[in-house]
Amino acid sequence: MKGGNWKTISSERHFVDRNLEVVTDRVQSPARPDPRTWTVVYRKAAVVVAPMTRDGKIILIRQERIPIRQAIWEMPSGQIDDDNADQDRIKDVALRELREETGYELAPGGELVPLGHYFSSPGFTDERGYLFLARSIQPCAEGPSREEGESILDCRQFTVAEIRRMIADNEICDANTLGICATLAARGLLSLAPR
Amino acid sequence: MKGGNWKTISSERHFVDRNLEVVTDRVQSPARPDPRTWTVVYRKAAVVVAPMTRDGKIILIRQERIPIRQAIWEMPSGQIDDDNADQDRIKDVALRELREETGYELAPGGELVPLGHYFSSPGFTDERGYLFLARSIQPCAEGPSREEGESILDCRQFTVAEIRRMIADNEICDANTLGICATLAARGLLSLAPR
Repeated sequence: MKGGNWKTISSERHFVDRNLEVVTDRVQSPARPDPRTWTVVYRKAAVVVAPMTRDGKIILIRQERIPIRQAIWEMPSGQIDDDNADQDRIKDVALRELREETGYELAPGGELVPLGHYFSSPGFTDERGYLFLARSIQPCAEGPSREEGESILDCRQFTVAEIRRMIADNEICDANTLGICATLAARGLLSLAPR
Repeated sequence: MKGGNWKTISSERHFVDRNLEVVTDRVQSPARPDPRTWTVVYRKAAVVVAPMTRDGKIILIRQERIPIRQAIWEMPSGQIDDDNADQDRIKDVALRELREETGYELAPGGELVPLGHYFSSPGFTDERGYLFLARSIQPCAEGPSREEGESILDCRQFTVAEIRRMIADNEICDANTLGICATLAARGLLSLAPR
């Protein structure tokens, strides 16, 4: 589904800082060679990690999110600073975010399972999140080491039944967490079916 | 989890058009009374509709998405132009988008089931999508009526088993579709479990 004849004819940049770039592009697409004008927010890619304990519980963090003026329970995540990061480098970022935000790391014999990527809002941004299952995990000796700009209020384990109830009741309400849960369920790695 | 003492101390607008507004806010939060500076992309809310036929199939559209330079299979969706829309008005938008993008409408006795909302990327935007299940649906007499700016290439029915496989294989890769599938699964309205 990728590829084809996409061509950017012109780009007008309106705003840029270290987190986003706002550009109006004129674009020819495979289906529409007549150029269309579209305003796009370009963003770094991100990692999203589902941390699973040996007994199948999931770790979520509760974080204040300024754009929505709310604190929400969500999977640990973070941006990938290097635009050209390969799969190994992306995995390093995932393990670092896991450690920093939750204070957990892979247990001996544990693995980071890549689950593909998703687009958060492809109507206006190219932002993508690379999804990983970290299984099994254990607390690290040094605990979490959270960045100054972040505001993580809490971090705890949830059973899969609790995760399912929180999704059904709209308490889990962010694309990262819903997207990774749908992917884990479709791969048979987590059951979202009610009892 | 909402509410608490959120206070916007100042806002500097960098860019605005009819689709998005880019603002750097200085904000006090309940957990962090020391003001933080954050750049936010404010966007209209959206509707996302899972259209289900009488025999349990799901309709997806295949759409060119300029920001990611790809055509992807996804649930029908659209923006809510009225910022103060109430639940009835939001439902009207959902039914209109369903009709325009897929050419389907609710069958006699069918209903639009509200499934809550989700945030597409709460680290940088306030964009939220209101999720609905439309069940059962039937083709409308007049067919789809797509807008000029859109580029919908295809529209067809998928079994739930096909949806599950497409999520597992990363062919379904947008937050709208993954988010609504996770919510439907957690409510027992669609099974993502592999056979």
